[in-house]
Amino acid sequence: MTESLDGPGRSARAVRVVAVRGADAVVRPDRIVGEEPMEIRAMGPGGGPPVSVAVTMRTPGHDAELAVGFLVTEGLVRSGDVVRTTIGDPATVSQPENEITVHLARDLDPAAISARSFVATASCGICGKASLDQVAVRCDPPAAGPVVTPATLLRLPAALRSAQALFEETGGIHAPRLFDAAGPLLLLREDVGRHNPLDKLVGAAALAGDLPLRDRVLLVSGRVSFEIIQKAAVAGIPVVAAISAPTDLAVDAARRLSMTLVFFIVWECFYIYTGEERVALG
Amino acid sequence: MTESLDGPGRSARAVRVVAVRGADAVVRPDRIVGEEPMEIRAMGPGGGPPVSVAVTMRTPGHDAELAVGFLVTEGLVRSGDVVRTTIGDPATVSQPENEITVHLARDLDPAAISARSFVATASCGICGKASLDQVAVRCDPPAAGPVVTPATLLRLPAALRSAQALFEETGGIHAPRLFDAAGPLLLLREDVGRHNPLDKLVGAAALAGDLPLRDRVLLVSGRVSFEIIQKAAVAGIPVVAAISAPTDLAVDAARRLSMTLVFFIVWECFYIYTGEERVALG
Repeated sequence: MTESLDGPGRSARAVRVVAVRGADAVVRPDRIVGEEPMEIRAMGPGGGPPVSVAVTMRTPGHDAELAVGFLVTEGLVRSGDVVRTTIGDPATVSQPENEITVHLARDLDPAAISARSFVATASCGICGKASLDQVAVRCDPPAAGPVVTPATLLRLPAALRSAQALFEETGGIHAPRLFDAAGPLLLLREDVGRHNPLDKLVGAAALAGDLPLRDRVLLVSGRVSFEIIQKAAVAGIPVVAAISAPTDLAVDAARRLSMTLVFFIVWECFYIYTGEERVALG
Repeated sequence: MTESLDGPGRSARAVRVVAVRGADAVVRPDRIVGEEPMEIRAMGPGGGPPVSVAVTMRTPGHDAELAVGFLVTEGLVRSGDVVRTTIGDPATVSQPENEITVHLARDLDPAAISARSFVATASCGICGKASLDQVAVRCDPPAAGPVVTPATLLRLPAALRSAQALFEETGGIHAPRLFDAAGPLLLLREDVGRHNPLDKLVGAAALAGDLPLRDRVLLVSGRVSFEIIQKAAVAGIPVVAAISAPTDLAVDAARRLSMTLVFFIVWECFYIYTGEERVALG
């Protein structure tokens, strides 16, 4: 029921660069990743004006997924409440594709928006403990499974080195992937932002009716911070693997939320920070 | 006149991990980077209540610099207006070091805060053009110089590979550096956030009375997005070099603001995206 906004064209752009090597300088073409602001709005069934929830700088593409995923992972919307998404009105917005409205089956609770800023400013917020409590409240009890073998985990980072169009073209983007616990890649999304592609993954799952993602493994290409764990937890993802080290607050949150957190210290070796019961050791 | 909050202790933390290599799993100690929320507040000379401007997730350390740098690079405060910084009141805040108040010689313009959210939500914001206009307005005319030799530029990334305590310990942090145009390293700051360490660098310069940074080269370890260029521009930095590719909006902004933007595609070769007049070619 969502409009696809995933067409090519603005996710990368051709530019001219001066390439310098030693004393040599030549002009050559290059391709760089796209970055544009996108406003996320929510509208209930009553027909009132949409509420502007956030503006994010993102790589264009999968915009409807991003809007839905953001609302879900921030705990503002249940995925079942999403009816459809629309882009802006070309009559009033110069770049309508940069304004996504998520239409909801029930009105967005104004307190939810306030609560979100409360979490962001007061509890998330000066006392990490209160923030972890907030996140825990928003999450369903974590799934016990899956149990993943070390061999399966060790195959995941290879995916990050394999062919992947936008990264190969431009460098400098984040491309988290969702795997089946047995190893097959299910979905990947790309974005210049570190949080956006995870929102896109979760949004895609939400739109497909696949939440919570109880039997999945998330591989992230960037650092694992508190917010990455928070978003994965709200989506029900039990195992997060990364090729950058986590922060202490991310480890605390993963432990508190009974998740498994793994970091590939080198390609053939990984560290388990918490939740080793989901890794089939020995 | 600022209180130093730069003590060690919370910038990294010891944890226990299960290290897995093939079929072997051993428990060993590890150190991970710290991440805690910090609230940035501003207070004018009138003695009214402080205004909460933002909460950022950051690596503890150089917190006063972060608060000042954030206010300056977001265009909310001129560095000359900063009188001192204080931490929270232990009687009312559980973690007073996570609440920094910047005391100002003149009241913060409420319109400036509104304007900031306007930039963030409306113009920065759906139409990149309007946003670039906003940034340009806040910046002094860019300096013509410096002119940097390719050899000097090519020496910069080596600094990113050299010994650097927190990175070596924990991985996964950003560590931008400020160089003299002739090459010597002047300052480096580290943080889990991509924007925070740049704010810390600019805050340090602001507190030392060194703004604008007209004759400096900034080397960033993460991707160059629009906001990195915006913050560098407000600080007056004319040359930005990176080891990750820029986005298209970052290139547009750098061109518009007459800055030089360089990307080390491999260690011995770099691309100049714009502003090649500041590189001594041929």
